[in-house]
Amino acid sequence: MTIKLNCDLGESFGAWRMGLDSAVMPHIDQANVACGFHAGDPQVMRSTLALARDHQVTVGAHPAYPDLVGFGRRSLNCQSDEIVALMHYQVAALDGMARVQGMAVSYVKPHGALYNDMMVNAEVRRAVMQSLAEYPAQVALMLQATPSFEQHREEAKAWGVELMFEAFADRCYDDDGRLLSRARAGAVLNRESMLQQVEQLHSTGTITTISGHRLELEVDTLCVHGDNEEGIRAIREIREVLQG
Amino acid sequence: MTIKLNCDLGESFGAWRMGLDSAVMPHIDQANVACGFHAGDPQVMRSTLALARDHQVTVGAHPAYPDLVGFGRRSLNCQSDEIVALMHYQVAALDGMARVQGMAVSYVKPHGALYNDMMVNAEVRRAVMQSLAEYPAQVALMLQATPSFEQHREEAKAWGVELMFEAFADRCYDDDGRLLSRARAGAVLNRESMLQQVEQLHSTGTITTISGHRLELEVDTLCVHGDNEEGIRAIREIREVLQG
Amino acid sequence: MTIKLNCDLGESFGAWRMGLDSAVMPHIDQANVACGFHAGDPQVMRSTLALARDHQVTVGAHPAYPDLVGFGRRSLNCQSDEIVALMHYQVAALDGMARVQGMAVSYVKPHGALYNDMMVNAEVRRAVMQSLAEYPAQVALMLQATPSFEQHREEAKAWGVELMFEAFADRCYDDDGRLLSRARAGAVLNRESMLQQVEQLHSTGTITTISGHRLELEVDTLCVHGDNEEGIRAIREIREVLQG
Amino acid sequence: MTIKLNCDLGESFGAWRMGLDSAVMPHIDQANVACGFHAGDPQVMRSTLALARDHQVTVGAHPAYPDLVGFGRRSLNCQSDEIVALMHYQVAALDGMARVQGMAVSYVKPHGALYNDMMVNAEVRRAVMQSLAEYPAQVALMLQATPSFEQHREEAKAWGVELMFEAFADRCYDDDGRLLSRARAGAVLNRESMLQQVEQLHSTGTITTISGHRLELEVDTLCVHGDNEEGIRAIREIREVLQG
Repeated sequence: MTIKLNCDLGESFGAWRMGLDSAVMPHIDQANVACGFHAGDPQVMRSTLALARDHQVTVGAHPAYPDLVGFGRRSLNCQSDEIVALMHYQVAALDGMARVQGMAVSYVKPHGALYNDMMVNAEVRRAVMQSLAEYPAQVALMLQATPSFEQHREEAKAWGVELMFEAFADRCYDDDGRLLSRARAGAVLNRESMLQQVEQLHSTGTITTISGHRLELEVDTLCVHGDNEEGIRAIREIREVLQG
Repeated sequence: MTIKLNCDLGESFGAWRMGLDSAVMPHIDQANVACGFHAGDPQVMRSTLALARDHQVTVGAHPAYPDLVGFGRRSLNCQSDEIVALMHYQVAALDGMARVQGMAVSYVKPHGALYNDMMVNAEVRRAVMQSLAEYPAQVALMLQATPSFEQHREEAKAWGVELMFEAFADRCYDDDGRLLSRARAGAVLNRESMLQQVEQLHSTGTITTISGHRLELEVDTLCVHGDNEEGIRAIREIREVLQG
Repeated sequence: MTIKLNCDLGESFGAWRMGLDSAVMPHIDQANVACGFHAGDPQVMRSTLALARDHQVTVGAHPAYPDLVGFGRRSLNCQSDEIVALMHYQVAALDGMARVQGMAVSYVKPHGALYNDMMVNAEVRRAVMQSLAEYPAQVALMLQATPSFEQHREEAKAWGVELMFEAFADRCYDDDGRLLSRARAGAVLNRESMLQQVEQLHSTGTITTISGHRLELEVDTLCVHGDNEEGIRAIREIREVLQG
Repeated sequence: MTIKLNCDLGESFGAWRMGLDSAVMPHIDQANVACGFHAGDPQVMRSTLALARDHQVTVGAHPAYPDLVGFGRRSLNCQSDEIVALMHYQVAALDGMARVQGMAVSYVKPHGALYNDMMVNAEVRRAVMQSLAEYPAQVALMLQATPSFEQHREEAKAWGVELMFEAFADRCYDDDGRLLSRARAGAVLNRESMLQQVEQLHSTGTITTISGHRLELEVDTLCVHGDNEEGIRAIREIREVLQG
């Protein structure tokens, strides 16, 4: 089974543009579409969905904490009830708008701080899974591929939620399978190392950590970035490696 | 066919309470639920939907212009594209959250300035109807019963949208079938006149205008208010008249 | 020197009312006025300031994290730069509006989670103090009276910022001088215990903790609440004790 | 007296960038700084002010209707009271932040729809002037130079408000001194016509309208744009003409 490529899209808001969405869309498999809480607005969502449909890209919801000025990057100490409700609101808004255009939301990837909190905080992860279990249509949860993947799979199974595991093409991992903090040297891989990491993952299902340790990772999809021309070039090169 | 009662609900937001929702819900047929743009938030929507389900009240979406501080009461000169998109977003968010609880949105009643603009501006009305025509589930449009009801019905038929006509129990009408401006004396009926207006509408399908003229109105539902104890008392009395 | 009474006011927003501001204002010395980030809007601020002027109440700014739906009660992991900037913005907005009416902001009391973070996190406290040190007019910082008051005074002295220490009339303290969590029994004092705590503080400068220990507290002002009629009654009784 | 150059700046918001502020600032005299209602946030305001100080550019407030998603471009039917309050709030916020850095707001130029409403609606203009008359520091009002300039000057005199008249370098005027609608051909001047219009205004105090009519305009400042490289080139060329 081929590793897919997912990318955050629809992050413009009102008069502000962000991301080269039209340039990226032809080269990815899965579009994580912002739902208005950290980025995106109804018109941006509508045009992003149209673009996804034109390129037969699978649509995922990219819900976030309600923090527009902070782009959803700051943890907000929400109760589980609130997380369930804000997940439903955002997923349903995008899903309904997708159905207007003959598509549907296939998966959900929490954004930014909500994603990070989900990975490290079992209570947040439970609220996220509960929200998807309750949702009337079948939607998978996209989360980070880590050595804890079996635990996450068990949790998801209990909720009846399907998982998609993602890895980061351009980020260096530590021995625990976590991303090296961006503050540290070598945290973001250069072009060559990135392509090597993708190739290794593709052919052996492993990545090599910062200390040289080899780590098995269960990976369904790679997160790529379409912020600028360089990002788009990288996506094309990654695609070639995966198809090689 | 009995005239139904509809009421705006779910208008609390964050720490702010508004409306006596639990006291009103047992006495109405249709709940117009705020969708987060002028009032309501995901948690308020979730609990309002649960309340509607408990009392077997039909759920309608109450979408608005994005104007929280102005409670959606001020006209916003939106393009048609934006109206279509913000309608889809809000209706879909509530509809999905309703489906989580085993219900669905049955109709849509635009709120405040969006409602007023829809009644007087053909372009806004067209955008509203288009949005419902495109929506993947069947949802009716609730709008004001006026002497233009046949024109509105034709427009809706062209879009394949079902209409529900509403009248206002406690408001005085002018000879053109419009509500008398609240600025004018006699615009809001006292208890006795209100019940008389309801009784006349119920038994003859007409209302008597400010000038004493008798006007036929096609009415499916009456808009009632649950802001305070007096409003709830009025709802009970109106109900008695309609069942009498 | 008499202990003053301070109260959070101006917490209405748009169409939503909160707090019995007109009933409270005559009975307090210091009004902590919301600045639009967690509550309040320009019109509410203007009318709250007019009310303060009418009753010769000192005006304080009550800035918060940008979290309207959460009422500023949830910690937001802001960088120091952002805290300094959002403090300046909110304090300046209220201060300028106060000057329009011939008053000025005399002190600043951070709200909710920003207040809590300031009390436990030295970096947040430094950002708050820096913002007031940089502010072109003299404004004091109101913070909680705790056994760490000397440390706080030293920090403030280094910034050239004046402090006001506040205690909570109706809350039980633990032996470390912190408020007992609201989750614990006895955290909120009943009417009699509250008045006794105020009387003891007034006459001896001490409070008695949950374990019966006696704690000296440096207190300039007491935080009181005007949410409902009972709160206003309590304010009057506290005032009588302090003037007794 | 030389005609000055003013430009809208500080229009980034959160994670979204807009405008080439650092490239523009060295070439203008007056910076219209967004105040958070249509664009800008406290951190953006702080850094924009620092940039203005570095280049000794005069600071103006650029207040707007509260409409972030619409960038303040849509008229909002606000009551006069609300306009006064939202002007005070935004001007005061920026003014206080400017004073933190040793500057002050010198003038106010309403943004977008608020600017347009001010030009055509006497009630809105009165509310704007009242807000500046009430403001505790001296701030001028920047508005459009039109054939009605004497009436505007009389109105302002009655309020004790100083005026600055601005013209648009790159826009074609009709015979009534209004900007030709952008929908019409020739509404936006090409480079050559723009420089010719600036030269004529500079040397004769007149512009030539779409019909070839010559119109006298009282102009203190020209509005220029720094959205892209072309805009910055135009600013430099305009500057050369004015200094020629």
